Amino acid sequence: MADNVYKKVELVGTSKKSYEEAIQNAITRASKTLRNLDWFEVKEMRGAVSKGKVASYQVVLSIGFRLED
Amino acid sequence: MADNVYKKVELVGTSKKSYEEAIQNAITRASKTLRNLDWFEVKEMRGAVSKGKVASYQVVLSIGFRLED
Amino acid sequence: MADNVYKKVELVGTSKKSYEEAIQNAITRASKTLRNLDWFEVKEMRGAVSKGKVASYQVVLSIGFRLED
Amino acid sequence: MADNVYKKVELVGTSKKSYEEAIQNAITRASKTLRNLDWFEVKEMRGAVSKGKVASYQVVLSIGFRLED
Amino acid sequence: MADNVYKKVELVGTSKKSYEEAIQNAITRASKTLRNLDWFEVKEMRGAVSKGKVASYQVVLSIGFRLED
Amino acid sequence: MADNVYKKVELVGTSKKSYEEAIQNAITRASKTLRNLDWFEVKEMRGAVSKGKVASYQVVLSIGFRLED
Amino acid sequence: MADNVYKKVELVGTSKKSYEEAIQNAITRASKTLRNLDWFEVKEMRGAVSKGKVASYQVVLSIGFRLED
Amino acid sequence: MADNVYKKVELVGTSKKSYEEAIQNAITRASKTLRNLDWFEVKEMRGAVSKGKVASYQVVLSIGFRLED
Amino acid sequence: MADNVYKKVELVGTSKKSYEEAIQNAITRASKTLRNLDWFEVKEMRGAVSKGKVASYQVVLSIGFRLED
Amino acid sequence: MADNVYKKVELVGTSKKSYEEAIQNAITRASKTLRNLDWFEVKEMRGAVSKGKVASYQVVLSIGFRLED
Amino acid sequence: MADNVYKKVELVGTSKKSYEEAIQNAITRASKTLRNLDWFEVKEMRGAVSKGKVASYQVVLSIGFRLED
Amino acid sequence: MADNVYKKVELVGTSKKSYEEAIQNAITRASKTLRNLDWFEVKEMRGAVSKGKVASYQVVLSIGFRLED
Repeated sequence: MADNVYKKVELVGTSKKSYEEAIQNAITRASKTLRNLDWFEVKEMRGAVSKGKVASYQVVLSIGFRLED
Repeated sequence: MADNVYKKVELVGTSKKSYEEAIQNAITRASKTLRNLDWFEVKEMRGAVSKGKVASYQVVLSIGFRLED
Repeated sequence: MADNVYKKVELVGTSKKSYEEAIQNAITRASKTLRNLDWFEVKEMRGAVSKGKVASYQVVLSIGFRLED
Repeated sequence: MADNVYKKVELVGTSKKSYEEAIQNAITRASKTLRNLDWFEVKEMRGAVSKGKVASYQVVLSIGFRLED
Repeated sequence: MADNVYKKVELVGTSKKSYEEAIQNAITRASKTLRNLDWFEVKEMRGAVSKGKVASYQVVLSIGFRLED
Repeated sequence: MADNVYKKVELVGTSKKSYEEAIQNAITRASKTLRNLDWFEVKEMRGAVSKGKVASYQVVLSIGFRLED
Repeated sequence: MADNVYKKVELVGTSKKSYEEAIQNAITRASKTLRNLDWFEVKEMRGAVSKGKVASYQVVLSIGFRLED
Repeated sequence: MADNVYKKVELVGTSKKSYEEAIQNAITRASKTLRNLDWFEVKEMRGAVSKGKVASYQVVLSIGFRLED
Repeated sequence: MADNVYKKVELVGTSKKSYEEAIQNAITRASKTLRNLDWFEVKEMRGAVSKGKVASYQVVLSIGFRLED
Repeated sequence: MADNVYKKVELVGTSKKSYEEAIQNAITRASKTLRNLDWFEVKEMRGAVSKGKVASYQVVLSIGFRLED
Repeated sequence: MADNVYKKVELVGTSKKSYEEAIQNAITRASKTLRNLDWFEVKEMRGAVSKGKVASYQVVLSIGFRLED
Repeated sequence: MADNVYKKVELVGTSKKSYEEAIQNAITRASKTLRNLDWFEVKEMRGAVSKGKVASYQVVLSIGFRLED
């Protein structure tokens, strides 16, 4: 097995429903332009409020993917 | 546009169902006494256990709101 | 009331559905061998990705339980 | 059991004798204006020096209390 | 000298010109309703961007003031 | 001298009197079941409040002990 | 409103005059190749010294921008 | 694939030669009593000095292993 | 001397032998597509375990390089 | 009032009795060689264990003093 | 090129005008007694308040300089 | 046994070969002017890159030594 190298990029996903959906939204967007997505780490969780309701859940993710040679 | 000033308060919301509901509970309570709630940041996630089950999800939030002049 | 002593152990729960379920999975497993589970703290949230989808939610928990004399 | 909401405030207690007394001083002052004080967390410990002696022990506390409906 | 107790509040100051002005804006606003302001700590520095220019400097401050008996 | 290996466990000691006693309580309990206790690190200091008084001092300790071969 | 996704990149701006100018330099450079720049966060502030004078202010920024679909 | 649960333990490995050997020493010791060791994280790197030489490299590791059902 | 701007990217290098080799592997891969690599910072050190042996050393690096005008 | 400059040094005080005494021991030692000691910050609290008892309380302090012109 | 060794010292600069001037004040003072000053890192930014105005900007710096053989 | 007091100084060691050698270089230099060196802690690991190769490994150390009375 070769000594792989990975890159990490930082994305912020948002969702009106939940953090899980916000994560999936970021992963979906990342997979449009990046291959070999492998794992993610949650760095920060935030949100916006409007009229006494949570208007969006926001999650800062660090996403790791394997670089091809 | 004026140079706004915001205040941040720290609340702990709890819920028997999910972190999203615990956040909404804290926001709902905050909006009883504070106006112009704008955003929140998740500072800590904890919970209580009872008889091998999660008894409550607890989330420490920092909530920001705009101060009026 | 006596001066109790508690121990904390670190577990990682996983779930294909949500962080709440990943937490419950870790608590369920812990309660097989430990008594007096009392609270937990979320230390880290991560996940695995496969084919552009979140394949598993992973949560690192610190779980506290009371030691018996 | 209802889903409670708690607020946290940050106080700095000081004492010429010990950190334990500095904490109690902050709690005593907080309980003049706040009800349902429940727990505290030590955030920072500092102090002042005068003529080669500790002149005061200073402790930054985050104090949690339950909000009434 | 008595054992003083201090409270800390968290404000966010903004300015179109500099972080120093953003700090002064927050202090000015705080001094409208709080007495005995004593010190501040910079917790976070951020900003907004518009059309390739910094549109505002934002500074999160923890401001300490002495509580009167 | 051999290359020793140590293990660290996390305990929470409590005391109605002081942090020093809370630490000793945790060490006393640990030494019932563990040998070769060597050092400890204070990770967190907290407490409970009841009727305007500190009801208990709580200290989270990481305790290191040498593993025998 | 759609669930937007943002990307964050890390740049280091430098200036011989001030941190505000160092930030603007990084933003100006970023806006050459990236659209929809939205906010920035200051991660680190450093500098170089030469002959007893600050020779450059250096600021590490995390810059967020909205990804287009 | 089932929703696995993992446990993390904290060990300190030491070596007179290098951090890599200190890590391997801790892993070797852990594998005497634990099965399914999977990954480790370096938490802290320290060392002892004697007569102007590094006398031992010490590494604090968090080691993860899969719990069997 | 102009006010340079630098970019930082995050890579994960791996090696079966040592952290130094894992770092060099990441730098080698980065230098295939990036020019003016200048410095790196170690953010995290981890590894994989297989059959009681360290199977790979993994190092998360933040690598800085100067942007050309 | 002039724009003062302060220096900070890091000392570790130890005591067989309490953290307060460990702090005073470090301050006493510092004041032998340094003038204008002004404040201290507690950075870390640790200790040694011997035969199931706390053998010494150890406190890492950052001590600030004003530099004379 | 030899393998240089550097030392870091921690100073606090103050200024009534700006953080940049507070940094320069600390560097100026350091260069009175230390040679080969090379870089600095901002560790903390604070300030004093008097009568609703910022009375001084205070910056904690870690300053690095090359040790001569 | 007396209540010892220790001092900590921060040095940066560099090496073209490895972090272990960089640490030893810093210790060697420190022992020229300081007695009773006792332990060190690794605070940061960095490096310089030149032409796609690691040009130097740099390690920031906090070194502790016992103060004589």
